[in-house]
Amino acid sequence: MARASDPTPSDPAPSDTTAPRPPGGPVLQDSVTTAITEAFFAELASAGYARLSLEAVARRAGAGKAAIYRRWSSKQEMAVALLSDLVAHTPEPPDSGSLRGDLRAFLGEVAEGLSHPLAARIVPDLIAEGGRNDELGQALLRTVRDPRRARATRMLQRAVDRGELPAGLDLDIALDLLAGPLYWHLAVVHAPAGPDYLDRLTNALLAALTA
Amino acid sequence: MARASDPTPSDPAPSDTTAPRPPGGPVLQDSVTTAITEAFFAELASAGYARLSLEAVARRAGAGKAAIYRRWSSKQEMAVALLSDLVAHTPEPPDSGSLRGDLRAFLGEVAEGLSHPLAARIVPDLIAEGGRNDELGQALLRTVRDPRRARATRMLQRAVDRGELPAGLDLDIALDLLAGPLYWHLAVVHAPAGPDYLDRLTNALLAALTA
Repeated sequence: MARASDPTPSDPAPSDTTAPRPPGGPVLQDSVTTAITEAFFAELASAGYARLSLEAVARRAGAGKAAIYRRWSSKQEMAVALLSDLVAHTPEPPDSGSLRGDLRAFLGEVAEGLSHPLAARIVPDLIAEGGRNDELGQALLRTVRDPRRARATRMLQRAVDRGELPAGLDLDIALDLLAGPLYWHLAVVHAPAGPDYLDRLTNALLAALTA
Repeated sequence: MARASDPTPSDPAPSDTTAPRPPGGPVLQDSVTTAITEAFFAELASAGYARLSLEAVARRAGAGKAAIYRRWSSKQEMAVALLSDLVAHTPEPPDSGSLRGDLRAFLGEVAEGLSHPLAARIVPDLIAEGGRNDELGQALLRTVRDPRRARATRMLQRAVDRGELPAGLDLDIALDLLAGPLYWHLAVVHAPAGPDYLDRLTNALLAALTA
């Protein structure tokens, strides 16, 4: 477990606000932010969003609760900010030059992401929570779904530009096809998605998209 | 809210065990079972499995906690038994005579089920919980996923028998295509799935299945 240097109730030693304060607010130590972020995702995976407590996150990070509140105002703001960051830092698969190549790379990236033990628990949990908590749901669609949807749309647009897909492509159906079967396979059925499965899925999706 | 005649701590009036006891155990009133079942699904939708308390279910049903424990030994047993019942009582769509007709009816049935306000919250929640709680996850795959998968397989087999699909159909991919895109559309993106959407999805899936 990562230990951070933020003060805890029992260890009021080095604080992430002992450094000189700039006019805008406290200086926040990166190592503390990293420890809290890692602790947040670990707690989110094991407890789920509904049961997650910021006390448990602070305890796991070896930090104080105040260190969390210096950075984020609430559990929801924290979840949305950290996930948005994660999405922003996921590199876009390069243009492979063909729809088949792009599609296979896209599916490989999604499979790798969803096979991560933390993501495998966090993603379905946040989808469920988004259905119960409208404000969180809307924030997640805006910060996670929309950028990912835009990325998939760019991939499809490249195929339209190359003449591999018709200009009148049914984008709604195409995006559901890109995301749905693999999500179902990994997160609902909990089946493995090895290279052979991904190749077969690529073929099936190509047939559906080019129909 | 349905009120049942089971005793509650504050209302020890008529009990579902006042009727003569058969040798096997207490007589359980159907009206109490129905009230508890409805209360269970309502609580499951609003609180989620992790936060659901049997006290809250009893309170909502106007029954006592003992009335629950006379029927089910635990929250998990209750969830699995009630869902298994629900699946067993969902009528199978009739054989329409064509893969297109069967597929469209199947998608219509899934869309109707997942659009129900309770199911829209319960299904994603149980999928998420199944990823955290292996025993529950296995039980749900066995009692909910397996019968539904068998039903979809029978539909595909009829199409193979009619010569509409090849005998060597890739069943894994086919089942992921049948379930995934519509689940994604309804439960993740929270988009509506009207008749037009379902017709377009039917066409895309036909192209993928027959490729």
